[in-house]
Amino acid sequence: MSATDRIWTAGLVIIGDEILSGRTHDKNIAQIASWLQVQGIRLSEVRVVPDIEDRIVEAVDTLRAANDYLFTTGGIGPTHDDITVDAIAKALGVQVVIHPEARAMLERYYTGRGSALTEARLRMARVPEGAELIPNRMSGAPGIRIGNMFIMAGVPHITAGMLDSLTGELEGGAPLLTETIGCWTAESEVADLLREVERAHESAQIGSYPFFREGRVGANFVIRSTDAETLKSCVDTLCEALGENGLDFTPGGI
Amino acid sequence: MSATDRIWTAGLVIIGDEILSGRTHDKNIAQIASWLQVQGIRLSEVRVVPDIEDRIVEAVDTLRAANDYLFTTGGIGPTHDDITVDAIAKALGVQVVIHPEARAMLERYYTGRGSALTEARLRMARVPEGAELIPNRMSGAPGIRIGNMFIMAGVPHITAGMLDSLTGELEGGAPLLTETIGCWTAESEVADLLREVERAHESAQIGSYPFFREGRVGANFVIRSTDAETLKSCVDTLCEALGENGLDFTPGGI
Repeated sequence: MSATDRIWTAGLVIIGDEILSGRTHDKNIAQIASWLQVQGIRLSEVRVVPDIEDRIVEAVDTLRAANDYLFTTGGIGPTHDDITVDAIAKALGVQVVIHPEARAMLERYYTGRGSALTEARLRMARVPEGAELIPNRMSGAPGIRIGNMFIMAGVPHITAGMLDSLTGELEGGAPLLTETIGCWTAESEVADLLREVERAHESAQIGSYPFFREGRVGANFVIRSTDAETLKSCVDTLCEALGENGLDFTPGGI
Repeated sequence: MSATDRIWTAGLVIIGDEILSGRTHDKNIAQIASWLQVQGIRLSEVRVVPDIEDRIVEAVDTLRAANDYLFTTGGIGPTHDDITVDAIAKALGVQVVIHPEARAMLERYYTGRGSALTEARLRMARVPEGAELIPNRMSGAPGIRIGNMFIMAGVPHITAGMLDSLTGELEGGAPLLTETIGCWTAESEVADLLREVERAHESAQIGSYPFFREGRVGANFVIRSTDAETLKSCVDTLCEALGENGLDFTPGGI
């Protein structure tokens, strides 16, 4: 296996009763997954756990052991239900400390607004000992990096700011390349065809994603490979096979 | 603990490379979580795993042991990447069989459309031995129920149809009641106040969910309890405390 064949993976732990209650619709899975793809890292598993320390510790421990990187979202604000930093310090067996740079950032932020750095706000400067900050151009509050772990905000546009400042910073492999072919057909019509085309291209996968729109059934076929030539060959073979079956298809997907 | 105090929980395993690649935005977590709340069942954990049999088996095994109910979404279509039924049969140590009723439903569906029940389509009649079908008024394809496990579609509106036919069928506890209070304040301003109000109401929890809108910061405080009186007392105390701090608040949330 050459260096470029090495597959880098990440796990994601989403911390938040608000997701498990159905109150808040998660947007971070898709956002982090897409960002990781571009870094050449595959999102391998996601766990959504409640705001309970033991449950966070367990999920973090399992997913960081199984992956190159671990991301968390949620639970790093100033209120009593924000316990992510404590849980991760516990998982790592380190103390929680006030990060001097985070403290200074928060002080500047609040005094600049004629307000004060209260005890509650100072909670946002707490980090597991040994951590660095993840700067965030979208708001004052930083994320936290400790080793291969990235502790990020739950509010999606703040998470986006943190991801932005990590872009290009993480070692990854060859990005997974994808092409989508859309087709107005029931996927059951082409199930055998898809299976055969995939079998003929060992290092490519084909996913089939059906939909119902405008009163008609259709499906998007997503072809994935880290190798551009394999991807092209697989896409070409699939399009040819669809054409031979009298099916119109839409490159780029429907 | 009285019968109504018993807390019923469910785990959810989302099966799909399309979620982990970021291509598809998950809508099933929120939909299933909200539906479970109404049934008096709490969603305790969600795992998103790839279309790999061993990974599905592991997640299913862990979450069904830890919860009263287990739900899965995705991977029950007719194509080669639909392997949920095989994985769950493996987890349960049973065979995969063709369900006669599902076969008859699919036959009626396809012959009624001048088409045939092909080998690929017959895949959708495969169930772990001993399973029943979950009828689905939204489309022909049924879900699968085996013991305390519910195997559902990945396409959200089909999942909705399956949930609909399960409404009122599952034993649950007292539904978790919630009230939301919105406030145009930085949550760090009221962190101490929230903590104190929560402490004074042992069987209620307060979650704080900050947002940025119209250039201003605000937060919604979600108060949860299975007991209506406790909920009311906690909400009243919180509103009083916000008022005493000179803050306007919006019952129902912002």
